[in-house]
Amino acid sequence: MLTLSIERLTKQAFAPFGEVVETDGLTPLSINQGYARRFNDLARIDVAAEGGQINISWFVASVRPAPIAIRLMERHPLGSQMFMPLNGADWLVVVCTDPLAPSSYRAFAATGHQGVNYARNCWHHPLLALKDASPFLVVDRKADDGNLEEHWLDETMQLDLNRIPLS
Amino acid sequence: MLTLSIERLTKQAFAPFGEVVETDGLTPLSINQGYARRFNDLARIDVAAEGGQINISWFVASVRPAPIAIRLMERHPLGSQMFMPLNGADWLVVVCTDPLAPSSYRAFAATGHQGVNYARNCWHHPLLALKDASPFLVVDRKADDGNLEEHWLDETMQLDLNRIPLS
Repeated sequence: MLTLSIERLTKQAFAPFGEVVETDGLTPLSINQGYARRFNDLARIDVAAEGGQINISWFVASVRPAPIAIRLMERHPLGSQMFMPLNGADWLVVVCTDPLAPSSYRAFAATGHQGVNYARNCWHHPLLALKDASPFLVVDRKADDGNLEEHWLDETMQLDLNRIPLS
Repeated sequence: MLTLSIERLTKQAFAPFGEVVETDGLTPLSINQGYARRFNDLARIDVAAEGGQINISWFVASVRPAPIAIRLMERHPLGSQMFMPLNGADWLVVVCTDPLAPSSYRAFAATGHQGVNYARNCWHHPLLALKDASPFLVVDRKADDGNLEEHWLDETMQLDLNRIPLS
């Protein structure tokens, strides 16, 4: 069985797949009479295709049994999908450019202060929490049409949970 | 000086001003092969006026000196504005229907698991954190036009921080 090693999540490494929603390395604006800093424009929300509207929702994710098996990838042809952890807990992100090409799969360790916005059509694994009952705010597309494609892997992969590069 | 007492934040009490972003009382969908629950459609994002686009940003708020003085209210005539705490820390929300009418002011205690979406044109106070360096994810409108009105109060109000109704 192919084991995916887990990389640190950085804006640069994730650029082919979407955006990392984080403040690291950014310069904020000072607002609210000096009582707040604002980091602007952190994700490209792309949900308006075919009359889609923005959907603000809340996911609560369970931890999957170890070793985490990667059997299913999905993508949303009509919209981006953003996940932001609400409990500061670390989590995992698995993406690929071609679900039929094992070498195109990448696994990333996201800190609890990193969100991810999957670009429209980016293949990704469903939510992978490292702590039970992890809450996430989700920003994606609302519509009744078919905005989901699934790919079940012929051969399951697994994640190497022994080395998770979190700072 | 007028002192505003602080109410518990509930969907019902906040309905004239926008939405409370929370899962309490809602029934989730089971998704991701049973490994996640999804609470859908929690806020009406209203940012498309005059070509506006959605802006995902991150605020970091400081605690203001006690007693917290209410001197300035603001509103956004072209868009809604949503705040979701990312550190689970409680915070405060002050809104009014008429900035010239002291009796229209309401103060709410939000738990760290409650976000708020101010409706377009809802008068509100800038972010009021109860813990220093509190991070919030913000969903509002991106555009260069004038989407801010401010009202400076003739007479400052203050918040009664001795009774904050948090569960």
